[in-house]
Order: sequence, then C-alpha cells, then structure tokens
Amino acid sequence: MEKTTVTLQDVREAAERIHPYIRRTPLLQEKNMDKVLGCQTYIKPEMLQITGAFKLRGALSKILSLTPDELKKGIITSSSGNHAQAVAYAGQMLGIHTTVVIPEDAPAIKIENAKAMGAEVIVWDRRYVERWKKVREEVAEHGYIIVHAYEDYTVMAGHGTIAMEIMEDLPDVGTVLVPIGGGGLISGISTALKESKPNVRVIGVQAAASCAYYFSRQNGHPSAAPSLPTVADGLSCRWPGENPYPIIEKYVDDIVVVEEEDIKEAVRLVAHGAKLVAEPSACVGIAALLSGKVKTRPDEKVCSVLTSGNWDIDMIGKILKGEHVEGVL
Amino acid sequence: MEKTTVTLQDVREAAERIHPYIRRTPLLQEKNMDKVLGCQTYIKPEMLQITGAFKLRGALSKILSLTPDELKKGIITSSSGNHAQAVAYAGQMLGIHTTVVIPEDAPAIKIENAKAMGAEVIVWDRRYVERWKKVREEVAEHGYIIVHAYEDYTVMAGHGTIAMEIMEDLPDVGTVLVPIGGGGLISGISTALKESKPNVRVIGVQAAASCAYYFSRQNGHPSAAPSLPTVADGLSCRWPGENPYPIIEKYVDDIVVVEEEDIKEAVRLVAHGAKLVAEPSACVGIAALLSGKVKTRPDEKVCSVLTSGNWDIDMIGKILKGEHVEGVL
Repeated sequence: MEKTTVTLQDVREAAERIHPYIRRTPLLQEKNMDKVLGCQTYIKPEMLQITGAFKLRGALSKILSLTPDELKKGIITSSSGNHAQAVAYAGQMLGIHTTVVIPEDAPAIKIENAKAMGAEVIVWDRRYVERWKKVREEVAEHGYIIVHAYEDYTVMAGHGTIAMEIMEDLPDVGTVLVPIGGGGLISGISTALKESKPNVRVIGVQAAASCAYYFSRQNGHPSAAPSLPTVADGLSCRWPGENPYPIIEKYVDDIVVVEEEDIKEAVRLVAHGAKLVAEPSACVGIAALLSGKVKTRPDEKVCSVLTSGNWDIDMIGKILKGEHVEGVL
Repeated sequence: MEKTTVTLQDVREAAERIHPYIRRTPLLQEKNMDKVLGCQTYIKPEMLQITGAFKLRGALSKILSLTPDELKKGIITSSSGNHAQAVAYAGQMLGIHTTVVIPEDAPAIKIENAKAMGAEVIVWDRRYVERWKKVREEVAEHGYIIVHAYEDYTVMAGHGTIAMEIMEDLPDVGTVLVPIGGGGLISGISTALKESKPNVRVIGVQAAASCAYYFSRQNGHPSAAPSLPTVADGLSCRWPGENPYPIIEKYVDDIVVVEEEDIKEAVRLVAHGAKLVAEPSACVGIAALLSGKVKTRPDEKVCSVLTSGNWDIDMIGKILKGEHVEGVL
C-alpha cells in the first residue's frame, strides 16, 4: 500500500530501524547564548551526525525499509549535496549498488566524495526537471529504487527521529526551529512533535533569497519563488515539495525568512559559543532568533536544529573572520 | 590526611561527584580521518564541555570535595585561561565566592569573562611565581581554599573522568593521545587508564616551542625548557609540575613534540572532518598522528583528547583559511 503521508508511528518505526547505524547526537544547552538570543538556548547538532549532516537518518530509514529483492536492484537519487553523500554512505555500509545523478555545476569535491564512497556517479544537466527525467530513465532501464531527498514519506520519517530525541532530552521544549529547503526535514520533525505534544511551537526558517515555502504560505497555495544567490545554498528551493507542502501547512506554526548578514553572524555565534562548524544553511534558526524574526520569552526553551557542517572550510574561515562571502545559486 | 597522589579510586569518586553538573561528552568515531591519520580515529571532544574546555571537570571535582565550612571561606586560583573560567563558572553555579588572579597581559576578554561569571578578579604580574605569591597572600588574609590547575590531586582526579568515559564507550581502545601543558590532565587520564587497563598506550603531546616535559624525560629529571611563542598557547609551561611529574614518569609511555604547521593543519582537519572548533592547544594529538610522530597500526583504535575550543574566532578563521598566524608566549 502506497503511503500518503507520514505519521508518528512511522517515525517510531524509523527510529527502530536506523538506531544501530546512526549517531544519537547530544542536545546541547548553550547558556552563553541566552542573553543575545532572548531565550533558553538549546541546539541539536546534526553536523556531528555521520557524514556531517542529518540526511543519513532519512536515507537509512528508506533503505532499511526495502525488501531484500528491492535492495538487490540497487538505489538511485539525485542531489549535489548532503543527501547524495548520505545515500552513498548508506549504500556502501549495506553493500548495495547506489547511483547518484549530480548536477554538472556541482563542485568537483562533491563528485569525488560520492565516488569515494562507492557510488556510481552520473553527471547531468543542472536543472531539477532534467535530472529527475534522467533518474526515471535509469529506473526504467535498471529497476533501481528511488530515494528522494524530500518527497519520500519514509525519508521524512527518518528525519522525524530528530524530534523524538529532542523530546526525550528536553521534555518541556517550547519551540523548535527548523531550516526549510525541500521540506522533508520539517515534515518529519513537525509530524513527530505535533502528534506527540501539540503545544510545542514549530517554526520553519528559510533564507530570504530562496523562500518558496514562505511565499506559498503568504499566498495560501503552492507558489514559486525567485531563487537568488545565498550563503544558505543547501536550502535553495524554487517550488515547494508536493508531498511536504500539505504536511507543513498542517503542522508548522509559522514560517519566517532571514537575511544573509544574519545567517553569517549566526555561523560566527555557533563557532564561538558552541564550538561547532555549521554551514550557513544550518544556522538559519539561530539567525531568526538573532534578528528578532522569531519572538521568544526569556524563560522559553527553544531548540534550533543545526542540520549540517559540510561547507568549504576556507569559506567558513572567511565568515569567521567577517570577510565578504558571495552567495551561490 | 593530605593526598600524595591520585588513584583510580579517586577518579571513580570524582566521577560520582561531578556527574550531575558536567556534560558527558560523546566519543566520536571519525572514519573520514582514518586514511590520513593511519589508524582508526576516535576523538573525545571536550570543547563541547560546559565552558568550552575539560577544565570544569577538575575544578568541580575539587570544589565539590570541600566541606561546607571550607566552601564558606571561598576559593582562589591563578590562571589566565580555561581553568579560571571553569573555577568562576563552578563558583557561580554553587554560590561560592571565587577569586581569580589573572596576569596583567591576559586579553581583556578573559578578564571580562571571569567578572561576568561573578568572580573577583585581581590583575597581577604576569610571572608565575609572582602571581602565586599574591595568591598565598590572599589566602593568608581571607582563608580562601586554593584550586590549582594542575598541582592538585583532586583536580587531576576530575580530569581522569575523561578516561573512564573513553573506556566505557570504547573498551578496546589501543592508544590515547593527551596534550600536556601543566600536566594535570594527563596525570588524571593516565592514572585511570593504567590502573584499569595497563596495556592501553598513553602518549603525551607538547608543542615543540614549549616542551618542558619532553625535555625532562630526555634528561631523566625535571628540566626547564625555553618557552617560545606558539599557537598552542594553552600548553605553555617552562617547568614540569611538581606533583604531575612523577605520575607522568610512571604512567605515560611516551612524550612527543609537534611543530606549529602540523598543529595548524590539525585545527583545519578537525574543523573539516569532525565539524568542531578546536583551539590549537587541543589539536596537538591529531598533529602528532598527522606528522607521523606517533606510529600506529591501521587497525589500532586511537583516541585523541581534544581539550578545548576557547580561542579568538577571528584567529580560528585565519587558520581555516591557511593564513599566517603568529604564536604567542
């Protein structure tokens, strides 16, 4: 039976499946940030997850749900970034053939990383529609199983395990801030939170430069947004995901946008205060607090999900020094 | 009865005392570093400890061992860095009067930090002997209890709790690499390791620019070393500690030194591979592996203790960018 949404029970089952293979990241209280952020600050540091990003949770949730016959066929995805790396890592760990369709303008290092983890790499047109056409051709020819980064409900369920860990470590959490790119992460997290503790506030954060979900909520229906260059390149998204959109409309209390300068300041704050290397995409939640885009009470326990840390280390150095860094498309 | 050394039992008792107040840092396996470091790489990320350094373990071990009457007298220490911050934090948390004698050339931010945590700050002569003379004068006048950063056996016992956590998380650890500054950290860690698992190899690492323990081992007796400028300023030490020295001679298998460039490369590797902001002093163990100063087998489980992350974030940015950074005295 094909799934038509993700549920708390799906998240619980995903947690059972992926538990032996992922890192249970700690929940870190960062008292030194309380004053500047105006709340009791907690972070969920998913850059400490294996492969440096939360994406492994979703990829493993999906792959470990497949039958032995399906696994034999191999898996395929298209992504230039953290999702590709997670799928390649999971495939290598489980001894499954993986194919990754990577846009031709991706940095060489990302292609090398996927190859080093044993993935078959197909370099293809950078446009989303063209790349997914190629994926479907490969599926037709080889019978591969698709592991989509954010349209797949079983991937969402894997990401929802982050929320289970937050609730376990901080039962009285008041607000959870989640970056939105494709929307898979916040779909899983908001489902797990709202179906467990409806009073927890869930806020999605996008870069102002690329904010399809924010536009869509303003307009009351799925809407395209211009995708401008941003340091939060991991969140670029021109159009809301078909499957995440209704979940986000149902469960996410508010969607806010943050500016480039606030994102870079948040990267510095996280390095200084939490001693963590976060990529800019990971820091939009902290940026939303820093800039006052999200209002909080000083006694409110606010958890920001820091998704990932896979960025050019030279560019991170520039941000830490306060030097100018260009956004990318 | 005055203590004359530190034992495994002391470490166990310290763990009981400090457990409710410290963060149990995770043990992180970093497979992506295995090839370049030539071993199975594990790190103990104490920059994630509260106050950004392992020092809180020792400070709390000592302070929580005091009687109510002693606590009422207040505590005092001299340090410009992580130990001062730990003592001030612990004092504030427990409502105890703390006095910190800080060298006059310490960065203003360190003085501000200690004051912000409620410590009474005395700015004094930068020379070690002069500062400790001032501490003893204060003790004579006010009856304060001294919490020495590395001469105190109960402080060492607190630091030894790091070893207990490593053994718990990685029972078949082969080698543990520990930075040596004053020597308190490695005294606690090596005692806990060697009195539990004598076959675990314990290696101390110093910066070549300031390597009193390395010199002393070469010479067979405590020896002064020139203290030159180094990026690993947290480890600067002209003379081995009186109490740590015999423990280190008894339990530490080898002491090696690393060069400035290797330390900076290690800072970059830790940021890139582990997504952690480490100060240079914290990275000498990784530098020893990188530079081949410590020989390992590819199947050997090697844990490097990354002590701290409290460094100017602009300077960390410079190191990440590969720019020149001057060492300090």
